Amino acid sequence: MTMQVFLNGQFVPEERAVVSVFDRGFLYGDGLFEGIRVSNGAPLRWAQHLARLQRGAAFLKIKIPFTPSELQNFAAQLLAQNNLRDAMLRVTLTRGIGARGYSPKGAEQPTVVMSLHPAPVVEPQKPPRWKLITATARVSANDPLTQFKTCNKLSHVLARAEADAAQADEALLLNSTGNIAEATSANVFCIKSGVVCTPGVAEGALPGITRGDVLEVCRKLGAPVAEEKISPAQLLAADGAFLTLSSWGIVEIAAVDGRELKSSPLLETLRAGFAKLPPG
Amino acid sequence: MTMQVFLNGQFVPEERAVVSVFDRGFLYGDGLFEGIRVSNGAPLRWAQHLARLQRGAAFLKIKIPFTPSELQNFAAQLLAQNNLRDAMLRVTLTRGIGARGYSPKGAEQPTVVMSLHPAPVVEPQKPPRWKLITATARVSANDPLTQFKTCNKLSHVLARAEADAAQADEALLLNSTGNIAEATSANVFCIKSGVVCTPGVAEGALPGITRGDVLEVCRKLGAPVAEEKISPAQLLAADGAFLTLSSWGIVEIAAVDGRELKSSPLLETLRAGFAKLPPG
Repeated sequence: MTMQVFLNGQFVPEERAVVSVFDRGFLYGDGLFEGIRVSNGAPLRWAQHLARLQRGAAFLKIKIPFTPSELQNFAAQLLAQNNLRDAMLRVTLTRGIGARGYSPKGAEQPTVVMSLHPAPVVEPQKPPRWKLITATARVSANDPLTQFKTCNKLSHVLARAEADAAQADEALLLNSTGNIAEATSANVFCIKSGVVCTPGVAEGALPGITRGDVLEVCRKLGAPVAEEKISPAQLLAADGAFLTLSSWGIVEIAAVDGRELKSSPLLETLRAGFAKLPPG
Repeated sequence: MTMQVFLNGQFVPEERAVVSVFDRGFLYGDGLFEGIRVSNGAPLRWAQHLARLQRGAAFLKIKIPFTPSELQNFAAQLLAQNNLRDAMLRVTLTRGIGARGYSPKGAEQPTVVMSLHPAPVVEPQKPPRWKLITATARVSANDPLTQFKTCNKLSHVLARAEADAAQADEALLLNSTGNIAEATSANVFCIKSGVVCTPGVAEGALPGITRGDVLEVCRKLGAPVAEEKISPAQLLAADGAFLTLSSWGIVEIAAVDGRELKSSPLLETLRAGFAKLPPG
């Protein structure tokens, strides 16, 4: 069956979901996106994803041509048209067509795309444990752009290709100072003496939605939290470590570069707290 | 008149020059480009531009689906079809359509686009002198990706927007260590006590084609050259400074952030040497 794609206010079959070669998303990665888990017919954490998209759009000075509730209605129609209740929804916003050159001047009609993709099958009875490698590709520390989900993702593409080549499940991205920033599609957490630690946004970590959920769970549980620099050695020596990502939720890190990590009982507590968060 | 665009082996009118919303160039900026000056019907420094594209494609593991001579023939046809002899030729190469996610696995049909755009009118009798600002947006030092002209150019877009807002001609991009990397579309040179200085590639400077030409002119003239770190203060204190870019050639820097720079007589010597380089 041909998938329907939302493109600038219309629903079109995927083979007609096309943009100009002069779209600045294609020319320069001049845009933003969100990857949203859809479960039981509803996009999860819609408000948080939209808020991050809006913050990025404000930073890049791209005017989103639809309101959040219009976008939410379009997303619901897209799910209905494709007869899907569990999926990953990708929302893409670019600056649209512009003249040659970096100047955004004159690019006034942003492009909005929404498309649906298969979601991973997560079995709550059999929590995943992933093997990671450390990528040679890095991200910048102290770069304001890393706090948004921009379409400039070559470092992540290269890191993911390194993980594929090593038959690993994910790749750790270090930042320009050698500390851990994030994984390609996930935030990184570790547990040290009962404290739940994760790199701060200035380290190059995307402020992930599931990352925010886990921090909220910690607050509810009264578990101490630290947003701080984490070196690769500190991660290896931690009492346990995990990833957070919208598609999978919480995923334990089993090993990094072939070195096995400890498993902390606190992880189960966090997972149970996470499962109890209100959906939506 | 409708412009013709080269798209994956075909010539199509610009309104039909479209790519899938699943093209990884659009999704992640997963691609490369070149901006080539066309003068008297011929793309200048074709071999050097193609070599840089090939180096980038090898690094990103994107297989260019045409040989350099096939691409050169297509470029000549594009110029003929559009009846143009002076222009800027943009060549874009992306990884093509792939599945959702950063992994490049399965994206096996790269996209190639060539399009023509107006070239600046350069008057040799009236050499340009540009006013620059220093952008707040930065580029990474020691990032292997900065040595290629990738489609991840949000820092450059933001810097160029800062220049526009300040009514400046160009924006200086500092790197993550605070030294000068480049300008958005140009390399930066300065002259210090008779030495022609420019930031090295590890500083985040694109190895520009005109930059290479100027270094060759220096060698021919016996002018000493240093690829080295240049701080903003060192640039301001230099005996003269200039930009190099394919579209304009050599452009003197008149001022940075409202502070006027000195003018070195060596610049005229370099300009004369540059004009004498064989075309092609």
